[in-house]
Parts: sequence; C-alpha cells; structure tokens
Amino acid sequence: MRVFIAGVDGYLGWSLAVYLTAKGHEVSGCDMHFRREWVAEMGSQSATPIREMVERLAALRQKFGRNLQFRKGDLRDYNFVLNCVKEFQPQAVVHLGEMPSAPYSMIDVKNCTYTHVNNLVGTLNLLYAIHEVCPEAHLVKLGTMGEYGTPDIDIPEGFFDIEYRGRKARLPFPRQAGSWYHQTKVHGSNNIMFACRTWGLRATDIMQGVVFGTRIDESGDDERLLTRFDFDHCFGTAINRFCAQAVVGHPLTPYGGGHQKRGFLPLRDSMECLTLTILNPPNTGEYRVFNQFQEVYDISELATKVQTVGGCLGLDVAIRNLENPRKEMEEHYYNPDHKHLLDLGYKPTGTVGVDDEIHLTLRDLIKYRGRIEARSDVLIPNIRWDGTRKKMDWAKPAAGDWCI
Amino acid sequence: MRVFIAGVDGYLGWSLAVYLTAKGHEVSGCDMHFRREWVAEMGSQSATPIREMVERLAALRQKFGRNLQFRKGDLRDYNFVLNCVKEFQPQAVVHLGEMPSAPYSMIDVKNCTYTHVNNLVGTLNLLYAIHEVCPEAHLVKLGTMGEYGTPDIDIPEGFFDIEYRGRKARLPFPRQAGSWYHQTKVHGSNNIMFACRTWGLRATDIMQGVVFGTRIDESGDDERLLTRFDFDHCFGTAINRFCAQAVVGHPLTPYGGGHQKRGFLPLRDSMECLTLTILNPPNTGEYRVFNQFQEVYDISELATKVQTVGGCLGLDVAIRNLENPRKEMEEHYYNPDHKHLLDLGYKPTGTVGVDDEIHLTLRDLIKYRGRIEARSDVLIPNIRWDGTRKKMDWAKPAAGDWCI
Repeated sequence: MRVFIAGVDGYLGWSLAVYLTAKGHEVSGCDMHFRREWVAEMGSQSATPIREMVERLAALRQKFGRNLQFRKGDLRDYNFVLNCVKEFQPQAVVHLGEMPSAPYSMIDVKNCTYTHVNNLVGTLNLLYAIHEVCPEAHLVKLGTMGEYGTPDIDIPEGFFDIEYRGRKARLPFPRQAGSWYHQTKVHGSNNIMFACRTWGLRATDIMQGVVFGTRIDESGDDERLLTRFDFDHCFGTAINRFCAQAVVGHPLTPYGGGHQKRGFLPLRDSMECLTLTILNPPNTGEYRVFNQFQEVYDISELATKVQTVGGCLGLDVAIRNLENPRKEMEEHYYNPDHKHLLDLGYKPTGTVGVDDEIHLTLRDLIKYRGRIEARSDVLIPNIRWDGTRKKMDWAKPAAGDWCI
Repeated sequence: MRVFIAGVDGYLGWSLAVYLTAKGHEVSGCDMHFRREWVAEMGSQSATPIREMVERLAALRQKFGRNLQFRKGDLRDYNFVLNCVKEFQPQAVVHLGEMPSAPYSMIDVKNCTYTHVNNLVGTLNLLYAIHEVCPEAHLVKLGTMGEYGTPDIDIPEGFFDIEYRGRKARLPFPRQAGSWYHQTKVHGSNNIMFACRTWGLRATDIMQGVVFGTRIDESGDDERLLTRFDFDHCFGTAINRFCAQAVVGHPLTPYGGGHQKRGFLPLRDSMECLTLTILNPPNTGEYRVFNQFQEVYDISELATKVQTVGGCLGLDVAIRNLENPRKEMEEHYYNPDHKHLLDLGYKPTGTVGVDDEIHLTLRDLIKYRGRIEARSDVLIPNIRWDGTRKKMDWAKPAAGDWCI
C-alpha cells in the first residue's frame, strides 16, 4: 500500500514510518520539523537522542532495503501539499502533522491562534489536495479522545442514535474539548466530516487515547531508528512524563486529585491500530470514527504502576500531586466505547502489557537519564488554563488523595 | 449601555449602530471594510448607495447628537482589538465582523482557508481581549441557524437533555453545517463555549435565521444612514436576492426544488432581538444560545410572496428554478425552537409583517434599480459545492417543482 505520512518526523509519525516500511509498504512523508522547534522553545529536548532526517532515512534504507521519499515543507502551504500528493499518488494519507500540545496552545493569544491556523489550515490543505488529486485515497486523521471531554454518559465512536421528543436520529456525538489544542481537533473533525459528505471523500478519524512507550520492535537496537520521547510539561504525556521523572528521582506529579480517567495505549498498540485502519478503508463518502485506546486508567493508578515497576528496577519513586494547572473535572464518569478496532482484529496488550511496556520504557530511559536531568526544570508545569504563567505548587494534601 | 460593534460597517453592523444610537446607547465600533472589498471582488455592489464611514458618522451625529467612536482595523490583529476594547471599556461586545458568505468560502482552497483564519482568529482575539480587559462584558456573537444543518429531529436552542443507555445528560446539540463558512461559525461557537467554561466569560451565541429588508425606522429618509443591501449570489441572501431580481425583471431563482426550509426575519426584527439580547446579559460564566428568527418558510413560498407583492407594485415577476449549486437536502424535516427571545419580550412582526417588509424593500429597491441592473450578471450563481466554477443552468422541470 502507498501511504503518505504528514508529520513523519514526530513521535507517532516516525514510528509509523518504520513500522509500515518493515511490513513492506511504500511510505512517503513530509515534515517541517516544527515539533523539534516547539520542544526546544519550551527549553526541552527528546529524551531519546533522535537523528536528523537524512540519517533516519539512511538507517531505514540499510535495515529494510527501502527508500522513504521525504519532503521538507509546511502543511500550511497548499502548493507544497499538492505537490507531495501529486508526486506520490497515495492510497492512504495519514495526518499526524498537527501541533499536539494542550498547554502550548493555552500559553497566550499568540499560541492559541497559531495552533488554530496551523492545525486547521494544514488539514484543509490536505482535504483539498486529496479532493483534487486522489479522491479515492483514504484520509486517516489523528484526533484525540480529548475531543469528547468528559460527558456524564457513555461515549460512542463518533455517532449515536437517540430519541428526542418522539423522533429518532443518528447524530454526531457532541464534543466538549478542554483546551484550545483539543478544540482545533474538534474543528478538524467537523471539517473532515463535511468534506466526506460534500465531496465523497473517505476518512477515518482516530480518537486516540494517550500513547506511551519508547519503542516498537521494528526499530530493533539501531539508535538511528529511535523515535522521539518528550518529557516536558507541554509535549510529554502522562505516563511518558512519569517514566522520565522516575528515572531521574523526581516525584511523579499527578495533577490535582489525580482521579481524572483517560484511555491509554502503548506505542506498539497505536502502530497496530493505525495499520489496521489503513488496511481497512471505509467506503467512498464515509466518515467513520474509531476510539483508539487499550484500557481506561485514572492518573493516580498510572503513577502507582510506574512507581511499582520502577521499584523492580531499583528506582526509588515518590508520587507527589501538583495543583492542577488545567480546568477539568477531576472526578467524573468515563465509559467510552472502543469496539471498532477490536472488530478489525486489534489484539490489545492488556494490563500485563502495560506493566511490561512501562518496564521497557524505564529501562530505555535509564540509558538517557543524563538527557532528562539536563532539562529537569521542564518537569513541573508553569502554563495555567487561566492564561497566567507560574510554576505549579504542590497540591494541598487531602485525605487519601496523595502520598509522598 | 456601552456597546462595541465589531463589523460596524456591514449590513447588520451599521443598522445596529444606528438603532442603538437612536435608543440612546453609547456605541463604538470597528471595521476594516472587507465586506466592501469582497462584494467588489465578486463584481457587485450594494444596491443601496452606501457612504464612506466618515459621512455615515457625520449623519449619525447630526441626527442623534451622538458620536460613534470608530476605529478602522483588522480583527486578526490582536493589538488592534486589545486597544479598541481598552479604550472603550464596553459592557457588551457585539461580534458581527466575520466573512459571512457560504459560496465565497466554497470557491477554492484559498477562500476556504481565508474564511477559517479570518473568522476564527477574529473571534479568538475578541475572546482574549475581553478576558484581559473586561471579563464582565457580555459577548454577543452572530452565529447562524445554518450551524445546525437539517437534522431529522427538533432543533433546540443550543443544548438538549437526552437519555442514552440509561443515563441522562444535558449536551450541546450536534451541529452539521453545510459550507466552510457555516463550519467556521460552528468552530466559533465551540470556542466561545470553551472560553465561558474556562475563563468565566459570559456570551450569547445568536443562531440567526436569514435576515431581509432594506431599512429600519431609525434611519428615516436620510440616505447617508442607509445600510448596505447585497444582491449578488455570494453576499445576497434569499429574500433580498429575490427582491432585487424582481425589480429588474429577472426571474426569481430558487435553487433546486426550492423546498429547503429556513428561518427568516426582517432586518428591524433582527435589531430588536439583538438589542433585547444586549440588554439582558447571561450570568457570569454562562454560554447561552438563542435561535433568532421570526418564522420558517420554504424558499419557493418566499419566491411566491415576492412575486405576489411585486405584482401589487406593478412588477411582472417570474419564478424559474435553477440547478442547486449547493449540496444540501431539498426535502427535510425542520422544526427549530425559538422561545428564548420571545421569553425576553420579542414581538415578531408576523406573516403580515413579512409581506409589508417585502413591500417596503421592493419600493426602496425600485429607486436603485439602475444600480442592480448595472451588475445583473451576479444574479446567477457560478460557485458550485464540488469546487468547480460555472454558471448554474435552469433546473430541469419536475412536476409541481417550478413554474415560469
């Protein structure tokens, strides 16, 4: 299958490029390396020592005997996007090329509008290029479970059948996202749904849970094939940040009470799910939504898991809750569906798998401990949802809420 | 009350400025005169001979003895927006400053992304400026009934209570808009809802029906106080376009079968509703939605009304359906609520009022017949929802669907 990856230099993008190339697919991709810049702007770096694209591509060629066609460019530039798609004539376009950080989008009006323009215009340009060049290609768009927010009812996969005042309808499930970044993902979902309805495009919108882990088997031990691993408070996600904190002796820092529930999945599961999605396209004109995660955990549970697994590796891991910089419900109902991918054959790694994955991640990160220590000031957030900028304090202890 | 109007040079913006000034409110406003440019770009002009802002302001001063503080500038420029709000310290901010045309947004990728950036960044800048300067101010944002699309159930005002798998929830009503322009309004609604929840702002999101008519009583007979009146296929809306067609002897052109139903209201009713909204702000942190229209009609019904009223004025009016350039349902259920404004005291003009309004509009337009005739080539649309650009043909006759 000919797969084009927008955002091929990122955490998921590079992993997917390696994964699909290893499976024998023909992969092309683009990136403007913005992720590297944003993380540097936050005073951080990838814990894993990622290589320049030219080295990455050489390593891929050596290991798998296949070329990945790479183009450097900005998704906001329509001609660039158009040329990428014209040249490669993809059968699937995987869109991972957005600004992916909630805190980064909440810093100020500049970052808020930048996130909107970057994420919306990039997606619109891809939709127009597909419409113009390869309307049969399948757009696989990375969304996030965060688009739904935390409604007090079950969360279906994109659509639900309801009865209202005696009439029945199948409607898109309403989305109540909790940051500007998450809002841009909602806007993107609405735009893709519209393009499918209006132009007959086909798309899968992936509401992905929080991904964690350092590796996929296909990279083997070649350090040049490693994907990035962020641990700063902007671009690092919960488990990854906890793992980074664990290896440098920093307390793990759940926000607030730590009872927020989210769906999570290991990086290798994300690759399996994305590939299943790519290999099983929807019908022409169909906009479908997959909720992509392995299991729901609350944040404190995850911190405890990292603490336990860390203990087995000889790490002395404390947990200390922080004041919550976000405006979010800390106690809430959470029961999202995730059947579509299971129906396609997704085999989740399960709870044992999560512990194993944390084990592998910690072991990998211990090698790069120095790179985390060098930037340890990015472990505590200083971007507040009210628009102010100040390091968070430790949370006031509430019975049972946290332990040191 | 101190009211700031973003987009004060537009059809609704200028009308509201006159209306509120006449009622003794203190009005300030900004505009970049983009609407004048967009309409010129489409090869058209306002049927009413609108004046430069400096003349408009002088006329307002003469008639009402009050100054309107005007600033020329672009809502995409945060510093401009911030200074407007800082200087005036408004109690209400009415946001009418968006690109308002569905066809214009559908021309190509350039217009699509322009509409997104213009409409989203403008609204975000206003939200940030209010948050920074006057968080107690009431944002009155112009949305459109088109945000909802045409679902097969009743349309509530923004939120609905549903039961799903045995649990109950109050949720935002899902929106399925039918053009890029309408999508940007949906994105704006989502963003405003988020800002209210996160920052405690207060806002009313007006899902307005299609507004028509040339005048409000407060302008009197001073031509310098007239608001604009667009009749081209991009910026003119259904009844207004029909009225313009009627006075130049062009057939009225419903799209497709003409059975599309929409909510409509006369310009004077829109002014009354907006003013009621401004004078009755929501609570701090509240995001509320008003469906603002007077009555639901289908497009053919309206064409017939214009034909009939035109006949009384001695106009010989034909109706001839066009192929539909849009992708929309032409036969559909449509039953939107509109109680919130009635609860606040809105007294609709009613059906007789619509006929009267059409009468007044036609009479006014007859004076400016020459200005419409000079641009009569903009009466037939040439922007198709599939992205091509070609004048629409007359619709193939289907029994009962149209008559000449």
